[in-house]
Amino acid sequence: MIGAGQLARMTQRAAIDLAVRLEVLAATPHDPAVLVGAPYRIGSPLDESAVTAFADGNDVITLDHELVSNDALRRIQQGGTSVVPDPAALRFAQDKLHARTRMAEMGYPVPAFAEVGDAAAVEAFAAVHGWPVVLKMSTMGYDGRGVEIVGDPSEAAVVLSGDGVWVAEEMLDLEIELAVVVARRPSGDEVTYPVVETVQEKGICRELVMPARVDTELAESATELARDVVAAIGAAGIVAVEMFVTTTGTLLINEFATRPHNSGHATIEGAVTSQFHNHLRAVLDWPLGSTRLTAPAVAMVNVLGRGTDLAMANLPCALEVEGASVHLYGKEERLGRKVGHVTALGESPDEALATARAAAGLLGEEAR
Amino acid sequence: MIGAGQLARMTQRAAIDLAVRLEVLAATPHDPAVLVGAPYRIGSPLDESAVTAFADGNDVITLDHELVSNDALRRIQQGGTSVVPDPAALRFAQDKLHARTRMAEMGYPVPAFAEVGDAAAVEAFAAVHGWPVVLKMSTMGYDGRGVEIVGDPSEAAVVLSGDGVWVAEEMLDLEIELAVVVARRPSGDEVTYPVVETVQEKGICRELVMPARVDTELAESATELARDVVAAIGAAGIVAVEMFVTTTGTLLINEFATRPHNSGHATIEGAVTSQFHNHLRAVLDWPLGSTRLTAPAVAMVNVLGRGTDLAMANLPCALEVEGASVHLYGKEERLGRKVGHVTALGESPDEALATARAAAGLLGEEAR
Repeated sequence: MIGAGQLARMTQRAAIDLAVRLEVLAATPHDPAVLVGAPYRIGSPLDESAVTAFADGNDVITLDHELVSNDALRRIQQGGTSVVPDPAALRFAQDKLHARTRMAEMGYPVPAFAEVGDAAAVEAFAAVHGWPVVLKMSTMGYDGRGVEIVGDPSEAAVVLSGDGVWVAEEMLDLEIELAVVVARRPSGDEVTYPVVETVQEKGICRELVMPARVDTELAESATELARDVVAAIGAAGIVAVEMFVTTTGTLLINEFATRPHNSGHATIEGAVTSQFHNHLRAVLDWPLGSTRLTAPAVAMVNVLGRGTDLAMANLPCALEVEGASVHLYGKEERLGRKVGHVTALGESPDEALATARAAAGLLGEEAR
Repeated sequence: MIGAGQLARMTQRAAIDLAVRLEVLAATPHDPAVLVGAPYRIGSPLDESAVTAFADGNDVITLDHELVSNDALRRIQQGGTSVVPDPAALRFAQDKLHARTRMAEMGYPVPAFAEVGDAAAVEAFAAVHGWPVVLKMSTMGYDGRGVEIVGDPSEAAVVLSGDGVWVAEEMLDLEIELAVVVARRPSGDEVTYPVVETVQEKGICRELVMPARVDTELAESATELARDVVAAIGAAGIVAVEMFVTTTGTLLINEFATRPHNSGHATIEGAVTSQFHNHLRAVLDWPLGSTRLTAPAVAMVNVLGRGTDLAMANLPCALEVEGASVHLYGKEERLGRKVGHVTALGESPDEALATARAAAGLLGEEAR
């Protein structure tokens, strides 16, 4: 697995059960997955030679994040080692302009968008879709970085003064944000987890409820859409499809993650098979596990850093919260950084959310 | 944790969630917990100096098995490092004669027993309790080793010709065997998992169902008895109390394990908090987690080695079994050796058992 963050860390947990050797390409020996004993090599995921060399001794290469040299992955594939997801599918997670353009070409619903090179282009876009406009860096953005909302051409000019390709997007009135986590084998079999309802703050997932509190028809549409697009882009492993639902009830594709994803963390306790187990199973082209929920409602709240070592210090207090399952990532607790999450099962979404929030609030920033 | 077998391996899985550093004292670098990346030192658990030295750099010492020098643990304790379980409590798991004698003295129900030094003593015991007689080695037995059933004095003489202290025990007509897994903090708080029904074959746990299919009254008696004796012996961490129920309905204490135990493996998927999480929480004197089951019925079937690498080779087939959660320990697959287990949740015990058996039967020896 290229990358050794919390996703690799939680995949290592699953690898223990399945007796799979999960080697990670880590940036430092203090990366979350290295801290829990995954065998590792040190190297940058953007360094083509480091990534290419990582194929030596491994049967399958997969990813903890998208910021990985696509060219190097292609080279690994050409060398005969399996890469899951396929680099062509990975591009949908790496490059927003590519994803939006191809989705639109294939007829899938996406927000109105345009590539914008300068403030004049943004102004032209706004003439049709109105101000404010959302500007997104096409590549290298994550957790809200590389997303700017601009209210006029001068603000747009400031954002576009830097490097990179930018995409303008219509500002939507959102009813709710959804995510569908799909596990798909290279041979085509797939399973889908119940639709997740996510709450984002400043581009960071704050909390989620599974199944989403939407009507059956919308849930089915979202599931079908996710399944279709994942097959269309030819991705395998875990793929999370993030979606918008506008106040007028329109379902639009937002982003792809072609790897285990924050919106699937609650599956560790909340589903018969976790996304991490299913990622390994999919990547190895093994039969996929049941995605059935283990409770009527499942909630997850991210723990965002509030102070140095606060989460570790407060862990015993958080464990007082009956029914809260705490996961800490061993990361330095910088302000606002995801350093863990709490999952809770419940008879209702409100009950599960209340439990997860109570514990997460003791460990890091309080939600809302 | 002293010992690096499958219990340490599954405790490492829980240590990942809680960001706890779990160092293990391993016999070899190929021990199950070492293979999944737990930091380790090599040393024999019976080597007093190796055990004593292991306290250096660790805050708390706990155990993966009972075959550990009790004297060394006392020395660690005297040196100011916490040992959980307390060595005095550990003796109840290490020494059957001690456990039976003290339980009887304290008025808890145990099978009729006597220390026997020779065949004449066995004959005297049989004169009261009848043949056959069960002979148990007082120390160092596990998984059916050190247990012999003898039908006459000459068979008894053969068994007693070797070294060691032996205990004679009445041969019971068993209705069912039960186990209760208790998690107890050194400060006294405790939680109890639902009573487990175990099926033993040749002294090895073959499969189990949770909750046990017994009437509420018996389940409550077993739970209360377990809670009482665990407090009485002053154990902390996970303690499994194995019990006999005779055909006449008598509940008797069989054995103690003062560590995570096979009868608690199903709690990984089957309970809100696994025994491994609760062991760490108890050992660190942190608040304990909910022991509520996640399904009406939970079953676990052990995978016993059938042939070299069979379990790994057949893993993809076993994963075809919908709802089976497979755990492999990375152990060499010697005939009859526990190399993994399968857990399944269900609406009924039969449903859960059928699922777990189907998968386990593909990986190792078939149950029954």
